[in-house]
Amino acid sequence: MNIRFYNARILSMNGDFTITTGEVIVCGDRIHYVGAPAAHNLIFDREIDCEKNLLMPGFKNAHTHSAMTFLRSYADDLPLSSWLNDKVFPLEAKLTAEHIYHLSVLAIMEYLTSGITSNFDMYFTPETIAQAALDTGFRTVMTGALNNFTHSLQELEDWHDRFNNGDERISFILGFHAEYTNSLENLEGLAALAHKLRAPVFTHCSETAEEVSGCIERHGITPPALFDRLDLFRYGGGAYHCVHITEEDLDIFAASNLSIVTNPASNLKLASGIAPIQRMLDKGINVAIGTDGPASNNCLDFFREMFLVTGLAKAREEDAAAVDAFAVLEMAVRGGAIAMGLSDCDCLAPGKLADIILIDLKQPNMQPLNNIAKNIVYSGSKQNVTLTMVNGRILYENGHFHIGIAPEQVYAKVNEITQMLTR
Amino acid sequence: MNIRFYNARILSMNGDFTITTGEVIVCGDRIHYVGAPAAHNLIFDREIDCEKNLLMPGFKNAHTHSAMTFLRSYADDLPLSSWLNDKVFPLEAKLTAEHIYHLSVLAIMEYLTSGITSNFDMYFTPETIAQAALDTGFRTVMTGALNNFTHSLQELEDWHDRFNNGDERISFILGFHAEYTNSLENLEGLAALAHKLRAPVFTHCSETAEEVSGCIERHGITPPALFDRLDLFRYGGGAYHCVHITEEDLDIFAASNLSIVTNPASNLKLASGIAPIQRMLDKGINVAIGTDGPASNNCLDFFREMFLVTGLAKAREEDAAAVDAFAVLEMAVRGGAIAMGLSDCDCLAPGKLADIILIDLKQPNMQPLNNIAKNIVYSGSKQNVTLTMVNGRILYENGHFHIGIAPEQVYAKVNEITQMLTR
Repeated sequence: MNIRFYNARILSMNGDFTITTGEVIVCGDRIHYVGAPAAHNLIFDREIDCEKNLLMPGFKNAHTHSAMTFLRSYADDLPLSSWLNDKVFPLEAKLTAEHIYHLSVLAIMEYLTSGITSNFDMYFTPETIAQAALDTGFRTVMTGALNNFTHSLQELEDWHDRFNNGDERISFILGFHAEYTNSLENLEGLAALAHKLRAPVFTHCSETAEEVSGCIERHGITPPALFDRLDLFRYGGGAYHCVHITEEDLDIFAASNLSIVTNPASNLKLASGIAPIQRMLDKGINVAIGTDGPASNNCLDFFREMFLVTGLAKAREEDAAAVDAFAVLEMAVRGGAIAMGLSDCDCLAPGKLADIILIDLKQPNMQPLNNIAKNIVYSGSKQNVTLTMVNGRILYENGHFHIGIAPEQVYAKVNEITQMLTR
Repeated sequence: MNIRFYNARILSMNGDFTITTGEVIVCGDRIHYVGAPAAHNLIFDREIDCEKNLLMPGFKNAHTHSAMTFLRSYADDLPLSSWLNDKVFPLEAKLTAEHIYHLSVLAIMEYLTSGITSNFDMYFTPETIAQAALDTGFRTVMTGALNNFTHSLQELEDWHDRFNNGDERISFILGFHAEYTNSLENLEGLAALAHKLRAPVFTHCSETAEEVSGCIERHGITPPALFDRLDLFRYGGGAYHCVHITEEDLDIFAASNLSIVTNPASNLKLASGIAPIQRMLDKGINVAIGTDGPASNNCLDFFREMFLVTGLAKAREEDAAAVDAFAVLEMAVRGGAIAMGLSDCDCLAPGKLADIILIDLKQPNMQPLNNIAKNIVYSGSKQNVTLTMVNGRILYENGHFHIGIAPEQVYAKVNEITQMLTR
């Protein structure tokens, strides 16, 4: 398909935050042209008048557990440990791979409504998670959740091989659940596997104060120091959450060129705390944003997350200038692309993959047009997302999904699964 | 107009958070019936199939400065004092009453998209603020912004008389800007006026640490203690923000049956801090929610505010059980109605004014239906608001405004005003 978006404002994020006017041309899965109106020797399958609304790169949801949609509003108002042990783990034990397929499709729909064009997903069954993305047209980077009970090193190696050599919309990065759910043997084995594959590694890290003090009790050092001692990050990677993180921990992230994925809504809702984003940026660490799973957030809305990143940083540092809107957009797009290994999805430019969203500026929350980029972060909403394109395909437009299945069927299936699981 | 909403889920908030199924019938400006389908001797102008979506009372935006829409994304990433003195005050000095009319209409449109059916508005020109509400069909409670430079006691008394004896959608409550912008003479005069009119009084209070320490320097006591000493709250009222508030301050609010209106997004963005909402609730104080003005937030989205109220309380108290979803809904609807003197807008019940919203549950963020009331607070979005009715009139439906003026005209006018002011 050749698609021409014309009469658009364009926030390409290719270098800076300048907004230009003109057109974006997509051929197949890639962007062919970004610039002023010009003559092209192309036959277009569709030409879309953007009516001076804004084209920009899609958001990267750099940490989530998509299939946890079934737990939305089921286990709220509980601290992380009882939330995990009393509610999440017992119900997850009943999940099948097929359940995870349907529950992931629901999450993908929600991503599309929020302008999210790819996710970094940690959950049990990569086969059906990948299938949900393939069937709907979405882009998914999966990561392992190695722990003492599920996922083995052999599985991680198999998945790494299988999912990095198939459809370009699917990839797999090594990962483990967390320090507190893994034996030292597991972590040593994973480090050896990472070295063998020359592969990056991701994990939950320093999410709660309890997790950090537990690690110090068990190993005498903080989680990042332990991972560094085990040489887990020799080929890069990074960590999710990083709320209770020391200066020395941050130095490890900076020295090894690791990414940190912040999850502000989840950290509030589980009372985990507020991550020191300004300090991370000051050290030059790549920061990305994730919604975390819908059981702990409970929604998958990047506009809410973006406002929280800047708002919480300002409150934490007692400095209204901390982590401004441009820094947040950078995290939401390029920071996520770096963490997820999606270097071809980081901006709108010829040759890049066509992960593009259209933002409706003709809504009261985007007026007046003092500063459009700031409007997106400070007053933007899912309501402004009128089109979401992944890999050159329009999957969501004007409230309608083009994902190969009717929303009503997804809702019916998910409610059926949820009722069965929570019965 | 007689309007019948049928085939609905109903969260009446008339007593508890039970959700029933049935119909809501509106006759003129009031609710005639809420309950199971029944025969009615009425001719309906319209019958709306709710398709099992949720009817509930509209949200009350209990603190805002609507017309500050012109400053959206114009003055960001600055601390409150330089934000006010260097950006806000100089531009506000150029505003005319007519500007405020148009800028308020834009805000009203945004309220409608977020299910907000009334606002508690503090700004310069009550005449044109009221006119914006009257022309669009909105419900507005205005409050005075008495300070050393604008608004006089005589004006407050005139407005109190004029706006509390006209259209039922408009009312006026005495108010002053803040302690730090008023002389003692002003405050003593306002106390005398409140006593004469037997009227409640509202004000900005303890928004920043600097404001509180300044008050202590000037008067030897905190702002609430000063107001209490001046007997400003003899007939009730309350305060906005209340971020830096002592136990003794809260005891004053509790003893005098005052309301506190919390403004979480604004308090984050201006780095003012996080208000102690759980402590307010523990003392039995009525708490309401406000967006504050669009210059400091920068949006007028009650879903974002609702999540922030619970999320920030959980993080502040380090307790994931703090201020749960039901407490937040109570603040967003009944708490606001109490603060704003809108006792007929607090729930869906026969005889109450018809301020009603319809929430689309057939969106991915509202599925599965484990707990609909929690979904609204934890994963709800403006995108779910498909209909907003104020005083029996549908002002917003399926993305279209029915406010007597085309959105494009409002946007054009507001951009013209903004360009002129910021030039």
